[in-house]
Amino acid sequence: MKIPEILMIETMQKPGSLAGVLQVIADSGLTIEHLHELKREQGRTLWEITLEMDEAEDLGLYERLDKLPTARFVGKSDRVFNSHRGGKIRMSASLPITTNQMLRDVYTPGVARVCLAIRADPAKAYDYTSLGRTVAVMTNGTAVLGLGDIGPLAGLPVMEGKAALFASLVGINGIPILIDEKDPARVVAIVMSIEQSFGAIQLEDFAAPACFEIESQLRQRLRKPVLHDDQHGTAVVVLAALHNAVRRLKRRLEDSVIGQIGLGAAGCGIVRLLRAQGAERILGADRNPLALDRLETLGGRRATLETIMASCDIVIATTGVKGLIRPEMVRPGQVILALSNPDPEIEPVVALAHGAVLAADGKGINNVLGFPGLFKGALDARATQFTDRMLIAAARSIADLAPGTDLVPGALDPAVHAAVAESVRQAAME
Amino acid sequence: MKIPEILMIETMQKPGSLAGVLQVIADSGLTIEHLHELKREQGRTLWEITLEMDEAEDLGLYERLDKLPTARFVGKSDRVFNSHRGGKIRMSASLPITTNQMLRDVYTPGVARVCLAIRADPAKAYDYTSLGRTVAVMTNGTAVLGLGDIGPLAGLPVMEGKAALFASLVGINGIPILIDEKDPARVVAIVMSIEQSFGAIQLEDFAAPACFEIESQLRQRLRKPVLHDDQHGTAVVVLAALHNAVRRLKRRLEDSVIGQIGLGAAGCGIVRLLRAQGAERILGADRNPLALDRLETLGGRRATLETIMASCDIVIATTGVKGLIRPEMVRPGQVILALSNPDPEIEPVVALAHGAVLAADGKGINNVLGFPGLFKGALDARATQFTDRMLIAAARSIADLAPGTDLVPGALDPAVHAAVAESVRQAAME
Repeated sequence: MKIPEILMIETMQKPGSLAGVLQVIADSGLTIEHLHELKREQGRTLWEITLEMDEAEDLGLYERLDKLPTARFVGKSDRVFNSHRGGKIRMSASLPITTNQMLRDVYTPGVARVCLAIRADPAKAYDYTSLGRTVAVMTNGTAVLGLGDIGPLAGLPVMEGKAALFASLVGINGIPILIDEKDPARVVAIVMSIEQSFGAIQLEDFAAPACFEIESQLRQRLRKPVLHDDQHGTAVVVLAALHNAVRRLKRRLEDSVIGQIGLGAAGCGIVRLLRAQGAERILGADRNPLALDRLETLGGRRATLETIMASCDIVIATTGVKGLIRPEMVRPGQVILALSNPDPEIEPVVALAHGAVLAADGKGINNVLGFPGLFKGALDARATQFTDRMLIAAARSIADLAPGTDLVPGALDPAVHAAVAESVRQAAME
Repeated sequence: MKIPEILMIETMQKPGSLAGVLQVIADSGLTIEHLHELKREQGRTLWEITLEMDEAEDLGLYERLDKLPTARFVGKSDRVFNSHRGGKIRMSASLPITTNQMLRDVYTPGVARVCLAIRADPAKAYDYTSLGRTVAVMTNGTAVLGLGDIGPLAGLPVMEGKAALFASLVGINGIPILIDEKDPARVVAIVMSIEQSFGAIQLEDFAAPACFEIESQLRQRLRKPVLHDDQHGTAVVVLAALHNAVRRLKRRLEDSVIGQIGLGAAGCGIVRLLRAQGAERILGADRNPLALDRLETLGGRRATLETIMASCDIVIATTGVKGLIRPEMVRPGQVILALSNPDPEIEPVVALAHGAVLAADGKGINNVLGFPGLFKGALDARATQFTDRMLIAAARSIADLAPGTDLVPGALDPAVHAAVAESVRQAAME
């Protein structure tokens, strides 16, 4: 899997010195993701250049860069590691505890009255504790990013990232919980034994097919919001993008033939939500026969990659396989969302050059747009579950906030998340 | 159980109007814990008066207050509930996530490199996640404060209080975890299945005797700090107070006959730590024969309340029974720590009046002095467990920080907690 590597390269301030660097990188077959000037002094410039590279693979690049007459490979940047140093989340007290009176109010002995009030009426826990703003971000580490089963501890940086986003975007306490168990029934039992700690539960990076049973069991047994983000969070953002795609093309989702390539957690979540939204003709493809059975229970029809590409108006790919869609497969007028990160099934520019009318990849269609507002809205409504109505309201809200001809809005605008939360809250109250 | 009730009382600004109020309260047999002027205007003063009262018991007090010619019972204050509203802890992101570049660094795709680094070397999780500053505050709600088995959810305000204190006093992320299980073996299994989420584990308000087995099992199985605060946190603060008591009296702990009345979690923890510190003659009393067996395994000798009061130089009581020690039982020259909250086994002033040379109750000997620094020091040292050496270092440090003739320092001074943490860290490194 390709992941970003940030190189630090120093160039002399002479014509062609940066061009020479970029040519060496191009000759290695690598694309520049980001280029940034760190400092310029004494006739030299230090650059940060971000590339997507296979782990531990340098293709002789560093050596070739160092041989350039006007450039020098300084080293790999620690920027990403530095931004993780000491962790990404901080707990604080909501009131300063600076006097003994305050200590007696928020801790013993005053707290005893609050305990007894909650014992008499458990719903009061939502008034007098942080429960109503607290979401567990749970994983067992079996499907972390595109890295696969790397275990729960190695997945912690992703869970902390989600928690940091919950805090930044909607002011929710996200609590990373790492579960050292793969068996679905035992995962469910573990979650049930600690669920009282949280107002809602986000399941994250559980591998298919275990993720389906785990989520389904928890939804049945808990009267609080549970969401497997890989399934439904992604689906909400895809639905938002498709709303804008068909609006722009003056088509209707209900009339479109939609092909879903890849029927893991994300693919199944997308098929399910599109069906709930009224899409009637959905084809699906996957190498795994069990995934195709699941597709049929969701109301889709099994097909091959080739059939989907030849017959569908809208194609969505969530396979993790770079370049799976060959350019010549693209049918003129198709909408193509190739969502695997970091390398899509087909680059949007390539798809457009071969006749697609709209194309996007997973960098823009980002599930960060969905989960913060979904949970904030569900908690604000004290919803007992996520309903399709709530997911659909979120998608519509995200779609409506996209500026200009964009399919979706920017992911870091708090106003977007506030609007999504409000639409989800209203949908939950109806 | 008595817990604080805050009354709002308005008096006219005339001689004797407040005295009249206080006399009515006195006639009800209640002691004033706190008196505070809220506002004074137009010839009237509004007072907050805090009393320790049994739940729902008003003894006709409110009616009698209302009958006073120059005072009016306005109502009960919501101050404590208001300070709990919305919860006592807030999560935030340690870095602002305001640009797409930052999003790519702390979330996908940048986070993948950090995940892989931790997968290759799990110890790196302490560098690049919040693990090294995160403590689970776990309870099953079986022995919350003096309220007994009120269940985990009703215990949440206490756990949030601990988490808020962790944040305020030593900058640690405290994570309340409510465990819906009483069987010790199953509690241990649940904790083991999620322990990777935390750098250390504080067990809180688990009832005896289950607490002993739970802590012992977890200490054996985990290579990270585990501490049942009710046992060891309290013991550390008691040891600190005794250090100063014997220093002031020019005695030695090793030569003193010590009596421990009440052998629940706190009592057993105290006996254990005093033995580790070198105390040789410890008598213990409890109504439960199993608790007396436990005492003997800890190196204490069983005795009666009467024998302890008649023969011990130092008496420590942790029974939860108000007034258990009758004034005439006090032996001249005794040191008496009557620690049950809110009502001690004997009021310190009464003990002193009957010949005790030093006496204190649980309001001053507060375990808030112990746990924050204990965990901060253990985490900073990346200790794999709490050793007696660490507990003893914490007690010595707390003792050394007591000002003047006080037995212990104030609980809210961050400098105290920093010093305790540093002494624990050093003890862990030795």
